[in-house]
Amino acid sequence: GAEAGSSSPSFFMATISQMVTEIIGPKEAGLKKPTIPEGKTRHLCDVYRSLSPEDKATFLRVISQQFGTDHDEVLKAAEGLPQAKEKSEGALLKAEERLQAALVPRYHDLFVQIGRLEGGVKYLVDMRADTLDLLTTVKDSSVSAELRSFSSCLREMLSHWFSAGLLHLQRITWESSCDILQKISEYEAVHPMRNWTDLKRRVGPNRRCFIFTHSTMPREPVVVLHTALTNQISDNIQTIVATALPDEEDADDINTAIFYSITSTQKGLQGVELGNYLIKRVVRELQAEFPKMTQFSSLSPIPGFRDWLVGEINKVLSSTESSSSDDSGVDGPTSTPPALLTSAELEKVAEIAGKEDALPLVTLKKLLQTNQWMGAESMVEMLRDPLMRLCARYLYLEKRRGYAVNPVANFHLRNGAVLWRLNWQADTNPRGISQSCGIMVNYRYFLGDTMRNSQRYMEEQHIEASQQVIDLAQAAGGVDAGGVDTPAGKSNL
Amino acid sequence: GAEAGSSSPSFFMATISQMVTEIIGPKEAGLKKPTIPEGKTRHLCDVYRSLSPEDKATFLRVISQQFGTDHDEVLKAAEGLPQAKEKSEGALLKAEERLQAALVPRYHDLFVQIGRLEGGVKYLVDMRADTLDLLTTVKDSSVSAELRSFSSCLREMLSHWFSAGLLHLQRITWESSCDILQKISEYEAVHPMRNWTDLKRRVGPNRRCFIFTHSTMPREPVVVLHTALTNQISDNIQTIVATALPDEEDADDINTAIFYSITSTQKGLQGVELGNYLIKRVVRELQAEFPKMTQFSSLSPIPGFRDWLVGEINKVLSSTESSSSDDSGVDGPTSTPPALLTSAELEKVAEIAGKEDALPLVTLKKLLQTNQWMGAESMVEMLRDPLMRLCARYLYLEKRRGYAVNPVANFHLRNGAVLWRLNWQADTNPRGISQSCGIMVNYRYFLGDTMRNSQRYMEEQHIEASQQVIDLAQAAGGVDAGGVDTPAGKSNL
Amino acid sequence: GAEAGSSSPSFFMATISQMVTEIIGPKEAGLKKPTIPEGKTRHLCDVYRSLSPEDKATFLRVISQQFGTDHDEVLKAAEGLPQAKEKSEGALLKAEERLQAALVPRYHDLFVQIGRLEGGVKYLVDMRADTLDLLTTVKDSSVSAELRSFSSCLREMLSHWFSAGLLHLQRITWESSCDILQKISEYEAVHPMRNWTDLKRRVGPNRRCFIFTHSTMPREPVVVLHTALTNQISDNIQTIVATALPDEEDADDINTAIFYSITSTQKGLQGVELGNYLIKRVVRELQAEFPKMTQFSSLSPIPGFRDWLVGEINKVLSSTESSSSDDSGVDGPTSTPPALLTSAELEKVAEIAGKEDALPLVTLKKLLQTNQWMGAESMVEMLRDPLMRLCARYLYLEKRRGYAVNPVANFHLRNGAVLWRLNWQADTNPRGISQSCGIMVNYRYFLGDTMRNSQRYMEEQHIEASQQVIDLAQAAGGVDAGGVDTPAGKSNL
Amino acid sequence: GAEAGSSSPSFFMATISQMVTEIIGPKEAGLKKPTIPEGKTRHLCDVYRSLSPEDKATFLRVISQQFGTDHDEVLKAAEGLPQAKEKSEGALLKAEERLQAALVPRYHDLFVQIGRLEGGVKYLVDMRADTLDLLTTVKDSSVSAELRSFSSCLREMLSHWFSAGLLHLQRITWESSCDILQKISEYEAVHPMRNWTDLKRRVGPNRRCFIFTHSTMPREPVVVLHTALTNQISDNIQTIVATALPDEEDADDINTAIFYSITSTQKGLQGVELGNYLIKRVVRELQAEFPKMTQFSSLSPIPGFRDWLVGEINKVLSSTESSSSDDSGVDGPTSTPPALLTSAELEKVAEIAGKEDALPLVTLKKLLQTNQWMGAESMVEMLRDPLMRLCARYLYLEKRRGYAVNPVANFHLRNGAVLWRLNWQADTNPRGISQSCGIMVNYRYFLGDTMRNSQRYMEEQHIEASQQVIDLAQAAGGVDAGGVDTPAGKSNL
Repeated sequence: GAEAGSSSPSFFMATISQMVTEIIGPKEAGLKKPTIPEGKTRHLCDVYRSLSPEDKATFLRVISQQFGTDHDEVLKAAEGLPQAKEKSEGALLKAEERLQAALVPRYHDLFVQIGRLEGGVKYLVDMRADTLDLLTTVKDSSVSAELRSFSSCLREMLSHWFSAGLLHLQRITWESSCDILQKISEYEAVHPMRNWTDLKRRVGPNRRCFIFTHSTMPREPVVVLHTALTNQISDNIQTIVATALPDEEDADDINTAIFYSITSTQKGLQGVELGNYLIKRVVRELQAEFPKMTQFSSLSPIPGFRDWLVGEINKVLSSTESSSSDDSGVDGPTSTPPALLTSAELEKVAEIAGKEDALPLVTLKKLLQTNQWMGAESMVEMLRDPLMRLCARYLYLEKRRGYAVNPVANFHLRNGAVLWRLNWQADTNPRGISQSCGIMVNYRYFLGDTMRNSQRYMEEQHIEASQQVIDLAQAAGGVDAGGVDTPAGKSNL
Repeated sequence: GAEAGSSSPSFFMATISQMVTEIIGPKEAGLKKPTIPEGKTRHLCDVYRSLSPEDKATFLRVISQQFGTDHDEVLKAAEGLPQAKEKSEGALLKAEERLQAALVPRYHDLFVQIGRLEGGVKYLVDMRADTLDLLTTVKDSSVSAELRSFSSCLREMLSHWFSAGLLHLQRITWESSCDILQKISEYEAVHPMRNWTDLKRRVGPNRRCFIFTHSTMPREPVVVLHTALTNQISDNIQTIVATALPDEEDADDINTAIFYSITSTQKGLQGVELGNYLIKRVVRELQAEFPKMTQFSSLSPIPGFRDWLVGEINKVLSSTESSSSDDSGVDGPTSTPPALLTSAELEKVAEIAGKEDALPLVTLKKLLQTNQWMGAESMVEMLRDPLMRLCARYLYLEKRRGYAVNPVANFHLRNGAVLWRLNWQADTNPRGISQSCGIMVNYRYFLGDTMRNSQRYMEEQHIEASQQVIDLAQAAGGVDAGGVDTPAGKSNL
Repeated sequence: GAEAGSSSPSFFMATISQMVTEIIGPKEAGLKKPTIPEGKTRHLCDVYRSLSPEDKATFLRVISQQFGTDHDEVLKAAEGLPQAKEKSEGALLKAEERLQAALVPRYHDLFVQIGRLEGGVKYLVDMRADTLDLLTTVKDSSVSAELRSFSSCLREMLSHWFSAGLLHLQRITWESSCDILQKISEYEAVHPMRNWTDLKRRVGPNRRCFIFTHSTMPREPVVVLHTALTNQISDNIQTIVATALPDEEDADDINTAIFYSITSTQKGLQGVELGNYLIKRVVRELQAEFPKMTQFSSLSPIPGFRDWLVGEINKVLSSTESSSSDDSGVDGPTSTPPALLTSAELEKVAEIAGKEDALPLVTLKKLLQTNQWMGAESMVEMLRDPLMRLCARYLYLEKRRGYAVNPVANFHLRNGAVLWRLNWQADTNPRGISQSCGIMVNYRYFLGDTMRNSQRYMEEQHIEASQQVIDLAQAAGGVDAGGVDTPAGKSNL
Repeated sequence: GAEAGSSSPSFFMATISQMVTEIIGPKEAGLKKPTIPEGKTRHLCDVYRSLSPEDKATFLRVISQQFGTDHDEVLKAAEGLPQAKEKSEGALLKAEERLQAALVPRYHDLFVQIGRLEGGVKYLVDMRADTLDLLTTVKDSSVSAELRSFSSCLREMLSHWFSAGLLHLQRITWESSCDILQKISEYEAVHPMRNWTDLKRRVGPNRRCFIFTHSTMPREPVVVLHTALTNQISDNIQTIVATALPDEEDADDINTAIFYSITSTQKGLQGVELGNYLIKRVVRELQAEFPKMTQFSSLSPIPGFRDWLVGEINKVLSSTESSSSDDSGVDGPTSTPPALLTSAELEKVAEIAGKEDALPLVTLKKLLQTNQWMGAESMVEMLRDPLMRLCARYLYLEKRRGYAVNPVANFHLRNGAVLWRLNWQADTNPRGISQSCGIMVNYRYFLGDTMRNSQRYMEEQHIEASQQVIDLAQAAGGVDAGGVDTPAGKSNL
């Protein structure tokens, strides 16, 4: 490894190029493939693993550039299409096949060879993670276009290998292997575990922890889903992760499953659908174990809400500055951004904060950014309505390319869940306050409706929401401006 | 199922079409895919399984025809390429991506959905087997072109799922599960087992039976490899399959592994490389278990040799007839097919057979076709030289599209084996006599050379053979006509 | 091994004696035991295994004689008791302890040492089987007394090791290991299996085959219990073992478990209660799997009935002869044995058999001994009543030391079952005809009553029987003579 | 449970008595045993488990008293012996059998019944632990004699069930189950683990942790043995338990196994030999894994050395006091205890401690009791020789009933190990200082000699020791007095 990277860049690049060529054969297409001994492919992987990050970057650039699709070949194959079409159906199909073959980049063969090695699939997952990392730093648009093609070819292969039928569902308990439990503890990012007692609780009575593993990556949880078994839809995360559990489960007292944490552990599998399938499988498992289980819901964080809100405040502030004469953020002319808090609310904020001389919105912004608003009970009480309202607006109305801007919302809505209920003071950990002012949300799964919901969301960008959420969003200032279609949302009372 | 197939053909076809549409969505491309509940996909599979062969054929024709690639879309995407190329690298890559997407037939999505079901992969394997069967009967060239595309798209998907990293190697012994042992017994086509004693012997001492299984098809051997552990390269199959075995292995007496039967059990995986990988894995296992093992070889049947020989005799006979004046099959003008036996040999045949009035070649043909030549020791002795010679010619010189015409030879040569040794009277079962006049062949694996051999075979159509084989082939009449390049074949003495 | 046995008997005996002494130490009791390396003990076992049957017999005689209890030591210890009693409770307990220690034969230590070896427990089981075999041939009463002590000490140790908590219940199906299934097939003595299809059926749908294994004898079924799942108490064995089974079970149609074969495979475990525990465990398993299961019953053979009957006929015949003037076997004076068939019945037998000149009882005896009575339908019909009647007498009234003379009856009655129903023509295999004239019997387990039944049987020799059985036994000639206590038997209608 | 204990004592005792009687039947011996349903036995166990410690004590007293051996029966049986002896060998054997049966206490049957229950063996282990606890508090000699018989009958049964062949060896790694690893962590008393990192290290590279489990107590380590793999006989425990370990093992650098902690986890199995067998099995495992392993040794604590030393100091002090005129602890008349330190040494102690006015021995005692001597380097250096010397005397010369007084020494010597090497400053944890002034000892296992060593130790009370130990013991003051037999101890260079 060391020797591969220590010499001059051009020599290094030539070396990579030659190693790959030896594995995937020369450029001319159409030759039948001989059997490649694993040794060379394995050596290439070993070299890559031993490289410095910079050399890895070079490696990826060389391969994505030199072993991509042969554009001339593609053009030539594409030109032949019309003629083939006139000839016959058979000729057209053949021409299309040739075109398809030409479109396959040469590194595709490399991926196939690597995938056959023991540990090869994991290697490709890691290499894709490196590629995604590299993409965030690359400036040159041509390089980044090639890397994106490379990454996307890799993602396609990985989706085949990680399709649901090849993933193994495994329930994790305190009797599971220590190394796997340790990984589950380390991977948990949503509600981190502080110690082994925490961990023991999350795999203990009234909890179900399921993972997907893959036969090519033994002892490695690919996706982790934590579920709490309750008798109502939970509105607070601390009751789930910070409460002492009973010694035994009372199956009679269980009718609800709360998905309170789902983690995809492999960055390199970004864009490969896994969490969705894990939820579905777990629902089936739970239904089999608890025939009386009737309610399925997430209790989800709302990452980005506080940052979005601060951004909105900034917009109002700068629009206010520019429109000068106005001294509150409320009810500007139509060109100004939608109001966030009512004048009364803003005054109240200033009053409680004791900073009546400053601009109330500036005060509010500072309070939110420092989490200081949580210090005074009266402030917390006061902000409840506006924050809940604005959070509903954020989740229900804020979109990107037509879909929910919040990634967690987007995940569950795509799965066919209903935007069910906002919960105030649901996560009072500093982390929860910073992310979403302590608000959490339930995405509820009505098993009979998920397909329809998913279809309407994906095809019509329709978000199925409860009356609570719709009412809150409507109450938000933006409602008047943005216009809400009022679906006959299910009531959650 | 019944109701689906009983109504009018056009209604049935419309029904299929609609069921598939509900699963893979409408024709317009580009839409993001919603989550499809498994129920509909599962139902489609159930319907298919319950159909009569005729209705299955209709089903396959409908899908391959109606849900294939959208040719107009492809043409449109192809037309945009030159323009994109002029614009920028990025634009070209995007255009190629669009083209690639257009080339994906719509049934690809259906395969993906089915593959996710429990048992879905096995379903697809079986559906491909049906398609391959159907293809042998379809006359209409347009229909068969579509079915071929369908089958080949399916093969591509299956190759991903059955790539070597996802297959599990398992050694089978008498302590393995009865149901799996029973399947291994039933699948064995090369050297059939008559009873459980036969089976017990094939998984007992001095034998190794390995299988590949796949996690989506539990308890189903996908490929089976039978190996005998010996101290020399076996020249006879009965000593392997019909001999009482010792109670215990003597590891000190083992230095050779003879692959004497390899079976791919799933017709639907035709064209998906599996046997090659199983041999490689088994070699690794055996090397780990027996560090002193130095020789690896097959002992293989030669299906088709007798039939080919009869065909050659027929050619000579008809050419003789047409050239009238000649009364033996030997040494005609260059336009006649190459001679098979010398005049002396032919006379001897007639003499021993006691039919001196008939044409000797006709006598020989009859003897071969009825296996009667095996009855007389003198005839067996007499035919040894010519049959061995002709068999070498068949294996070494007879080609199709440049590669060995014999499929078993093609398999091992592609893997990088050497055409090592022809063995006379190696399989004296009626089956072996009928197939190859009792001759069997060793394809030997020199582990250090397999890559080079495979490459030369695949790229240059070069067959690496031992001196015995080359000498025999040269001695065959065809040698003079066809010209043998004389490689420095390894000697097997 | 060979050398150990080839030399002179006395030298051989001295050798054994010395080997054992080295393992269990010198005669003086009371020393603390040093750690014995396994090597010597293992060697002794190896020597034993390699001996001829004669030398094994010598071996067992030497050990049972030379390493038994030290009688003088025992006497001495026994003599001290009264004095100790007068002294104090503590002194008495100590004295008893010393006595108990003295009573332990020295070979007990040998068993302990052997039991610790890998395979040692199996060795002891086999050695006990040898001892039991030997006991059937030994004439010398002193030798046989010592061997009995030896065997009984061994049995005690084995009962500890084979107590129910150390046995593992395992269900055997067609997916179980071939070697275990093969053993199950070979061990089946009650209803032998002819081939693997038979075997597959006995572990297939509507059947449950359970075994006990022991951790010291891996892959060895210690007891085997075959159960049929039905919807009524079976009255015929062929419907169980010779009927094609459905592809799947219909749990709704199952409410009865029929234990139709139970086999203890290790002769050396004779007298160690195992079958009883297996039945209990299987009942628990079945109740868990089929909550609606309400009926548990055996369908059992009646080994010995035909032989007993022939013996009874002989008695009548010889008593008849001696009382000379009487020419039928019926109604002799009180000193004659009880009548078996009525005069009318006997005449009918003679008539159907067409041998009216011979003594009817002699004719009957011959018919029974040759199974010829099964040939004529009329004879079968005619004999139904008397044979059923006599069979009830045999099972219900014939005793040895107060308990049922039939060993199968004794086994089930001890377990607390009810003598439930005799079934005519229940086993028409030659074997069944020879054993019990084709009659089989159900011993039924009423789970709530087994303890009481078992207690009354063990303590009062009371057999709980159904009205059918009681009525039949009463109808038998012997009933009047022997007197039946008429328990309020459960009706089986 | 509650109700059983809440009523009057005599009623409670009667209840227990009756429950037991129902299980084991009435007093009269000789009856065959009926089948007992598990329900009653299970109930008795449940009742016991729910009792308060006081009620448990009553329970145990009632059973040990009322269901012990029938002394009159024993006496009667014993009286018959002489007569039987005169009659015949067979009669004598029978009489002895009857005597043996009479000696079996009635609670033996109860143990058998309980042992058959699921969890029954564990229950008996726990009940024996309770009995042993109770024995330490009982004053009445008759009660304690009965409890000792009870406990010893129980121990006998447990030894059968926990004989080596029934224990399963299991290697524990970081991939083992969390619950078992947690137990291993909690059970470790010799060198406690502070956290999971500690634990991970003890099952990681260069370590082997093996346990025995028993099939009746799943997931429960019965004995735990921790071994370090090194290249020399370790002289310090911190290098084993507190050092960062390498990522991978280097098998070439391993030739020594150090047993540094062995724990029997079940108090109720006291007196049942287990640790010995675990060491033997682990030696076999390690030899199989590391064929080059040549050295096996413990690194053992010396619990009790400091306390013994303080006791010896006290003896000297009081003898000094009584002999008044003497002002040092050295060289008293022959009636005084042996000297511990030389005068020079004692002066040095006083000097370093700066307490020259006090009696040096008193100063030393205080220093030892407070561990303060460890504070001054010069004191540590000064005390090295005398403490090592005295420790050798403690281990090598101090006996109880002829065997080593130190229990750890007794364990390893009984196993046949050699008292190999004392290590200064080998355990500098407060715990190690308090126990044994930081000294640890290696008991070395020469595999070929363990049997001889064990025999000589058990039979002749001979301790095999190295020259280092012998020299040290000889140097100790007591050597002259006590006399050392100077075995040709192996030199440890």
